[in-house]
Amino acid sequence: MTKTKTISVIVENQPGVLARIAGLFSGRAYNIDSLAVGETEDKSTSRMTIMATGDELVLDQIVKQLNKLIDVIKVVDMSQESYVERELALIKVNVAGKDKTELMNVVNVFRARIVDATNETYMIEVTGTDEKITALTDLVKPFGIQEMSRTGAVALTRGKR
Amino acid sequence: MTKTKTISVIVENQPGVLARIAGLFSGRAYNIDSLAVGETEDKSTSRMTIMATGDELVLDQIVKQLNKLIDVIKVVDMSQESYVERELALIKVNVAGKDKTELMNVVNVFRARIVDATNETYMIEVTGTDEKITALTDLVKPFGIQEMSRTGAVALTRGKR
Repeated sequence: MTKTKTISVIVENQPGVLARIAGLFSGRAYNIDSLAVGETEDKSTSRMTIMATGDELVLDQIVKQLNKLIDVIKVVDMSQESYVERELALIKVNVAGKDKTELMNVVNVFRARIVDATNETYMIEVTGTDEKITALTDLVKPFGIQEMSRTGAVALTRGKR
Repeated sequence: MTKTKTISVIVENQPGVLARIAGLFSGRAYNIDSLAVGETEDKSTSRMTIMATGDELVLDQIVKQLNKLIDVIKVVDMSQESYVERELALIKVNVAGKDKTELMNVVNVFRARIVDATNETYMIEVTGTDEKITALTDLVKPFGIQEMSRTGAVALTRGKR
């Protein structure tokens, strides 16, 4: 059965960890939808959040193999938990010679922010779930998207650990 | 000379690309500070934003090798450009039996948001540069950080491409 999973992996902050983890997925021809790697509250560890879509059984196998890797401290399959998921996107939109009212309405409705402006372009910062970011992207598409960059999702379980 | 660089890499959305790119860095024992991979405006490509610190000459060599990789469409060394950089962090803070006024002050000053609350914990969402997120993290540390997750930075050049 095809499923999208969000997997959170706490790893030792060592060169090579990322290559090994990415290799686990690509070795099974498994495409990662998004990946975010950043520091945690402890500088010696990093947290990777991986979103991947595919056969559930294969994904379960990958999770088991992740647990066996050196430098992997903890793997959490977020789909088993109650969690909050957020992603950030920067979207550069053409505004040259255009009425910006409708664009600003969309920005306000989505509680997004304009973080840079020139005569020709506005840069929008938006945070939310994958669905929210895709919805905003679809709405601003008619203006002409010059460039966009998405961080990939991060996720934390709700309440006390 | 040691330097922190932000590198933006547009790649074909294929299994194995991430492993090859991560391997390029780890093959030179080069630690990646943060990495964010997400979709672009074109579903067939992804954009990776890599922040790495180390010897400038070695980093320049890595950039050259990135350009030679199959599936790599474009590499931009952001330090050569005028750009906007943003990262997102989720931070879960202990609030049990604590006065939340000071916490809410910090959240407001940093234009952050509370995205989840239980009797024992508040979850903060904040966006900004690496420095801003580190500054907020330092301020909320006295409350007790239970967990945090950072996306790693994404970056877009200012104005028209």
